[in-house]
Amino acid sequence: MKILIRNVLLNGETTDIYINEGKIEAIGSSLTRDADKVINGEGKVAVPSFINGHTHAAMTLFRGYADDMPLRRWLEEKIWVLEAKLTEEDVYWGAKLACLEMIKNGITVFNDMYWHWEATAKAAFEMGLRAYISAVFIDMFDRKRAEEQIELNLHLYDLSKKYSPNVVFTLGPHAIYSVSEFSLLWVSEFSRKNGVFVHMHVAETEDEVKFAKERYGTSVVDFLDSLGLISERFVGCHGCWLTEEECEILGRKGAKIVHMPVSNMKLAVGKVVPHLLFSKYGISYCLGTDGCASNNHLDMIETMKFASLLAKFATGDPTVLPAYEVFQLATKKAAFCFHLGEWEIKVGSTVDIILLDLKRPEFVPNFDLYSDIVYAANGSCVDTVICMGNVLMEDRKVPNEEEIMENARRIARSLVDRDR
Amino acid sequence: MKILIRNVLLNGETTDIYINEGKIEAIGSSLTRDADKVINGEGKVAVPSFINGHTHAAMTLFRGYADDMPLRRWLEEKIWVLEAKLTEEDVYWGAKLACLEMIKNGITVFNDMYWHWEATAKAAFEMGLRAYISAVFIDMFDRKRAEEQIELNLHLYDLSKKYSPNVVFTLGPHAIYSVSEFSLLWVSEFSRKNGVFVHMHVAETEDEVKFAKERYGTSVVDFLDSLGLISERFVGCHGCWLTEEECEILGRKGAKIVHMPVSNMKLAVGKVVPHLLFSKYGISYCLGTDGCASNNHLDMIETMKFASLLAKFATGDPTVLPAYEVFQLATKKAAFCFHLGEWEIKVGSTVDIILLDLKRPEFVPNFDLYSDIVYAANGSCVDTVICMGNVLMEDRKVPNEEEIMENARRIARSLVDRDR
Repeated sequence: MKILIRNVLLNGETTDIYINEGKIEAIGSSLTRDADKVINGEGKVAVPSFINGHTHAAMTLFRGYADDMPLRRWLEEKIWVLEAKLTEEDVYWGAKLACLEMIKNGITVFNDMYWHWEATAKAAFEMGLRAYISAVFIDMFDRKRAEEQIELNLHLYDLSKKYSPNVVFTLGPHAIYSVSEFSLLWVSEFSRKNGVFVHMHVAETEDEVKFAKERYGTSVVDFLDSLGLISERFVGCHGCWLTEEECEILGRKGAKIVHMPVSNMKLAVGKVVPHLLFSKYGISYCLGTDGCASNNHLDMIETMKFASLLAKFATGDPTVLPAYEVFQLATKKAAFCFHLGEWEIKVGSTVDIILLDLKRPEFVPNFDLYSDIVYAANGSCVDTVICMGNVLMEDRKVPNEEEIMENARRIARSLVDRDR
Repeated sequence: MKILIRNVLLNGETTDIYINEGKIEAIGSSLTRDADKVINGEGKVAVPSFINGHTHAAMTLFRGYADDMPLRRWLEEKIWVLEAKLTEEDVYWGAKLACLEMIKNGITVFNDMYWHWEATAKAAFEMGLRAYISAVFIDMFDRKRAEEQIELNLHLYDLSKKYSPNVVFTLGPHAIYSVSEFSLLWVSEFSRKNGVFVHMHVAETEDEVKFAKERYGTSVVDFLDSLGLISERFVGCHGCWLTEEECEILGRKGAKIVHMPVSNMKLAVGKVVPHLLFSKYGISYCLGTDGCASNNHLDMIETMKFASLLAKFATGDPTVLPAYEVFQLATKKAAFCFHLGEWEIKVGSTVDIILLDLKRPEFVPNFDLYSDIVYAANGSCVDTVICMGNVLMEDRKVPNEEEIMENARRIARSLVDRDR
């Protein structure tokens, strides 16, 4: 598809942008090119789309079902009870709703970990998003479950080609307290041989840190590193309780960390990510929303504001994580984490593009675009979304959105009453 | 004006609501009443409007002009430099923009403190909002300035009748470090005699606490109480550094506190309001956005999420400030703080009403309306706003919004280059 965006604001100047099959071929005023689709960019600004570094897409089905509860009770009495009933069809509609919500908020890439892998892959593929998807790998230290999980992952790895190029298969060992050493070694080996990302919860809670100490006599990262897991393919999520020593290892090995400020605050995990150590040790990190049961909104603009303000509050320093820096964490630096290439709007780039509507109070007077995006705007300011050369949203309209909401609503409500 | 809202969701049931001259006269299905205006409520839910407990409306003009700076430098090098140039006309358009933004986000009442009192009053009056407005009262311990300020306030108190019933005059002694004891005594006396609210920054920063100790040998609240200022007419803003002893006084005297989670985090004031003490001592409190230079968005839905999550994070307890409780802080409890009467949608009430659009991903599946509003929604989910019996917004459209944005944009930009 050939897309011509007319008279849009880009880096402070009004220009045209020409995209051919997902690649930016020309930027300049009054471009004369054939286009299948012409978009009027007047009153709008073009920026790279947002990348959601960690979510559980289908958990949109649980939005508002259980909040304001202690983590353990929330999981055991509410979330796991519903999750046990989930079918492929349920996850498909939950993931569709998540994709719709992410598109509405200008997100074109998400990194997912959930049950019923193919349902999420199909949803992302149909909605036209880019997705890194892992199946939740949990064996609870049971060899039989471990072998089933390995078999499943081998199957999904082959199956994933069907959803290429949108979907990338990744490995999703849940966390050190739910996956055996045996399985983690397999994950490590498979990741190394096939160049596959490892997507894992790391040092999210104090309990996890204690678990590592008690079971393995070491830190979370040290343990994972001893299994060869810490590499440039490792994407560790949360990382609230990481120590200086662990950050040194992560930085040296080129591992990535995804920070979830909203979820961490809502579940009161007790610590903020040590982002000053991330900088000190050169760790690449980015931001994620987490799933809708613990956020409950898939909006990276909101997440940027929380990330910046939480960092300022926790350090007592209002100069920490300024607007442009946090914008990069949600775009360019996230793209680096996921090997997505240069995430900048320039000729030759395959970056996804969103247009923000400047005719809103949030963008008046518009002294600083990045300040306005991070501190004043929200996902509803996104007007147009272009991903892999296709227009996914225009004038805030996404095809079939009513059908998706209707099905997700029906399924979520039926889930509560349904027997397992 | 007679307004009939048809088939809207209210407390879980679909019903009609009939409003006559700002008073709810009937609630029930298939009402047969004459109406000047019929609103289709299908797919929408009716809730009380939001009350913004503390802002500086015209500071929308400074949105994005200076962020990520230490508080002192931010004030001295940026904000005060621009403020010194402000004219009545500038403040008028800045306040108009703020009113527009608040209407868009479902806010119908705001408590303001700023320069050029009448400009804000006129803006609020024209936009149809309810506003408690104080002139910033600063004398910097100079008797001549004090007398000028007193004279000005006497004048504004008379003038305020012109903007009734929308606008209520309040007294705005800025803070203990910028207003002399002489002036504070006058404020105290005038407030008592005329039943006027006192709107003041209280215990926002550690420096303020030190100032009270050094100059007056006591705490901020103890000092104010010795001047007779702490009463049910006292609205203290921020209160991050309040001690147990101060909370006891505030509770006993029936004073109110307004909490600004976003501003407090962004400026890194170093402490979170002691809300557990507020409950313990029965202090009525509510929420505010603060001005656009330190937030930078006048959205009480966003502020509710920040308030709840900051409270959970700071206490390490995810059960603190649950969704419904924080929703009440932005509606019913705020109405109590400002003597607005019962802020509930029921027959006989003069509550302002907003309709939220449920046909958005944020409200799917909609297990819990208050959770969805606080944790998933944002101001852009507001579809319709009714204030004092008038429709201020319908289908997210506000009259003259382009003109307001255009003028505010022009003025804000001219301000930077303008000589004093």
